[in-house]
Amino acid sequence: MSYYTHLECCECGRTHPTDRWLGVCSCGRSLFARYDLPRIRAEVRRESLMHRPPTMWRYREFMPLGRDEPVVTLGEGYTPLVPLGTVGPAGGLHRLFLKDEGRNPTGVFKARGASVGVSKARSLGVRRLIVPTVGSGGSAWAAYGARAGLEVAVTMPVSDAPMIARKDCVATGARVILIDGTTTDLFRMSQRAADRYGWTPIIALREPFRVEGKKTMGFELAEQFGWELPDVVLYPTGGGVGLIGMWKAFEELQAVGWIGSKRPRLVAVQAAGCAPVVRAFDAGADACEPWERMDTVVPGVKVAKAFADRLILKAIRATGGAAVAIEDAETLATQRRLALEEGLYISPEGAMTVAAGFRLRDGGAIKAHETIVAFNTAAGMRYPHLVRDDLPVVRAGDEIVLAESPRSDRVAPATG
Amino acid sequence: MSYYTHLECCECGRTHPTDRWLGVCSCGRSLFARYDLPRIRAEVRRESLMHRPPTMWRYREFMPLGRDEPVVTLGEGYTPLVPLGTVGPAGGLHRLFLKDEGRNPTGVFKARGASVGVSKARSLGVRRLIVPTVGSGGSAWAAYGARAGLEVAVTMPVSDAPMIARKDCVATGARVILIDGTTTDLFRMSQRAADRYGWTPIIALREPFRVEGKKTMGFELAEQFGWELPDVVLYPTGGGVGLIGMWKAFEELQAVGWIGSKRPRLVAVQAAGCAPVVRAFDAGADACEPWERMDTVVPGVKVAKAFADRLILKAIRATGGAAVAIEDAETLATQRRLALEEGLYISPEGAMTVAAGFRLRDGGAIKAHETIVAFNTAAGMRYPHLVRDDLPVVRAGDEIVLAESPRSDRVAPATG
Repeated sequence: MSYYTHLECCECGRTHPTDRWLGVCSCGRSLFARYDLPRIRAEVRRESLMHRPPTMWRYREFMPLGRDEPVVTLGEGYTPLVPLGTVGPAGGLHRLFLKDEGRNPTGVFKARGASVGVSKARSLGVRRLIVPTVGSGGSAWAAYGARAGLEVAVTMPVSDAPMIARKDCVATGARVILIDGTTTDLFRMSQRAADRYGWTPIIALREPFRVEGKKTMGFELAEQFGWELPDVVLYPTGGGVGLIGMWKAFEELQAVGWIGSKRPRLVAVQAAGCAPVVRAFDAGADACEPWERMDTVVPGVKVAKAFADRLILKAIRATGGAAVAIEDAETLATQRRLALEEGLYISPEGAMTVAAGFRLRDGGAIKAHETIVAFNTAAGMRYPHLVRDDLPVVRAGDEIVLAESPRSDRVAPATG
Repeated sequence: MSYYTHLECCECGRTHPTDRWLGVCSCGRSLFARYDLPRIRAEVRRESLMHRPPTMWRYREFMPLGRDEPVVTLGEGYTPLVPLGTVGPAGGLHRLFLKDEGRNPTGVFKARGASVGVSKARSLGVRRLIVPTVGSGGSAWAAYGARAGLEVAVTMPVSDAPMIARKDCVATGARVILIDGTTTDLFRMSQRAADRYGWTPIIALREPFRVEGKKTMGFELAEQFGWELPDVVLYPTGGGVGLIGMWKAFEELQAVGWIGSKRPRLVAVQAAGCAPVVRAFDAGADACEPWERMDTVVPGVKVAKAFADRLILKAIRATGGAAVAIEDAETLATQRRLALEEGLYISPEGAMTVAAGFRLRDGGAIKAHETIVAFNTAAGMRYPHLVRDDLPVVRAGDEIVLAESPRSDRVAPATG
C-alpha cells in the first residue's frame, strides 16, 4: 500500500505507470513522481512524524516506494540547522542558519537522492548503474549501490576528480573511470557506454527518483522551523535538483495542508566562472545557454547547462527569488571565515551560498531580521587540497613555544 | 537552574565545587560530574525528550551546564544505528548494528566531548586549550574552540598525524604543532608547555567534561532501543572515555528510573599491536602496564596506558564484558567488507569493533540473536591513505568498456 500513484511529465503532462524504470518522458523532459495527496491529507497527521527516527525516511508517505519495497538506507537526512551567530550578524543577517548537509553518509547531500534512487532501482530490477559526475555524486551512489548489491560505475573528469571522491568510490567497490576530456565528453561517453552495455545512466533529472530524495530537504525545513518556512533559501546550483526538489516539496506540503501558501524566495547560487543560470535569469530567458569555459574551484556547480534549466528558472521566478554569481576568491574567503569564526569547515559550495546571502543583504534584497537558510552541500574534509598545512615540527625534548598571538597566526617551532 | 551539583573523585570520593575549572582531584585521580538525580527523577519525564531536536543536547538535564550557560554546539550526537544486515548474519550475528559516530561534526565522535568541554571552558573563563592527540581529537577541539572564540593548540606526533586531522585543525585556526617523538614525549612536552604558558591541557579523564559528552552515547542507545539496552556494546578503546561514559550514563538512567538494572556487556576492543587493556584484563590485573612498542594502523587506540585504566577494567568486569585484541590485517579486511557489502566506508577503529563481534561469536561469548552494537568512531574519508586508487583513464572520444566482472574487479581502460 503506497500513496505513490504515477509518473508525470513536467512539460507535456503525460502520465506513466510506476512499475518499471523510466528515465524521461517520451517527449524527452523530466518526470515527477506523483502521489495521492488528498488521501495523505485525510489519513496522515504531521504530528505522527515526531515519533519516527530523525532521517529523511520519516516522510515515507511522500516517497515513491510501496510498503513492501525495502529502503536502502544509511540513516541519511534530518541534518542540523546550525545558527551562524557570529558571521551572520557581522554581515547584517541576524537569523542566518546553515543547513549542514555535510553530515550525511559519505559527507555529502547526494546521499538523499542516492538512497531513493538505489532503493527504486533495486526494487524495479535495475542492476547496473553508470554515474557520470563532476562533483561528489559518485561517492553517494557507490555507497548505496554497494549496500543494495548493485554494480556501479562512476565516471569523472580526470582534471577535477576530487581525491576523496575517488577514494571512497573505490572503497565501496565502484568501478571508477577517469575521463580525459570535458564534462560534455564525460556525459556523452557515459551515455554511449550505458547504451552499448545495457547499464542505466544516472543523471540529474534524467531519472525521476533523485529529486524525490532531495525534496526531503524542503520537508525538513518546514518541520525544523515549526511548519513555517524561512524567508530565503540560498542553494548552490549545478544540476538544480535540490532547488526543484524543495519547490516540489512545498507544493506537496501545502496540498496536504501541513503548510500555508508562504514560500521562501529560492536563490540559485553559482560561481562567477560557471554561471549559466545567473546569466539566463538576468537576461529574462526561459532556458540557459551552455557556459563555454568553466573556471572555478567549486566542483559542484560545474554544469555547463543543467538538463532541467527551465524548471530551475521557473522555481526561482515563481518564488520571487534570485540568481547570484560569486567569485572564487570571495567563496574561499567566506569558507575560511566560517571555519575560523563559526568552527564550521564546510565545502566551497556551501561557503558560496553564505557569501551570496551577504551580497543580497548589501543590495537590499534581504532584510536584516529575515530568516535565511544557506545550504552546505558537503563536509569540508572532502576538500583537503584547499587547506595549506606547512606545520612546525618540534623535536622530542625541545620546548613547545606558545607565545601570545592572534588566533590566525601559527606558532613557531622552538630552536631548542 | 541546573541539576549539576558538584564534582566527585572517582577514587577517594572527595567532592569539589563547580564554579571553577578543575582537571583532577587533589589525590590525582579523575573527577566525575554529579547531579541531583532524585530531583531529575521527580521533575523530568523521558517522553519530554521526544519533542527536542535530535542532538545530544536533548539530554540537557544530565549535562554540567546551568540554564544560563550557553552551549557551544554544531548539532552533534544522535547518530544513526545502521543495521549490518549482510555482513552480520554472514558472521552469525543476526542483530548487529553500527552506531555511526562518523556522522558527527568533523566526522568524528570526539565532537561530543569537545562540545561539552568547550562550553564549560568558555563559561568558566578558560581561554587557551592545548590538546595533545594521537587520533582525531584535535579536529573536534579545534572546531568547537573556534566556535567559542578560544585559542586552541593541537600537538600530534609527526609520524602519525593524519593528513585530514592536520588540515581541518589548520582550517579552524588551531595552532598545530607536530612532535618528532613518542606519544610519551607528546604528552610530557604538551603538559610542560601548558604549565609554562598557563594554557589548559585537555587530556582524556584529566578533565571532567569530555566524559559527560561521551556519556550521551549511552543515553542514545537507551532511547534508540526503546529504553531497553542492547546485550553487547563493542567499543574501540584508547583512552576509554566512551566506555566509562556509557557506564556512567547507564547508572544515571537507572537512578532516575528511565531504565532497569540490565546492562550491556561492555567490550573493550584494541589493536593487537597496542593492547594494554586486553593484557591486563586477561591477567586479572586492576591496572594496565604501559605498552612498550605500539605497532598498528589504527591511530585511535595508540595509547600506551590510559590514565583511567582502572575505571575501564572495572566497567568491563562489572558488566560481564570482555577485552579483545584484533590484528591489523583482520581490521583492514573487515573495513573493506563493510564498505563493499554494507556501503559503509568507516574508520579502522570501527571496523575493528565489528571484527571483535565476530571473534566473540565464534568463541561462543555472543549468541546469534543477541542485540549487538559496534561503534564506528570516525568517517572512513578521514583515512584516505588506506585506499589505493590506481585508476584507468579513458581519453575523450574513446570507448568506456563495461565488461561483465565481479563487483570487486576494476574496469580496464579501452585502448581504442
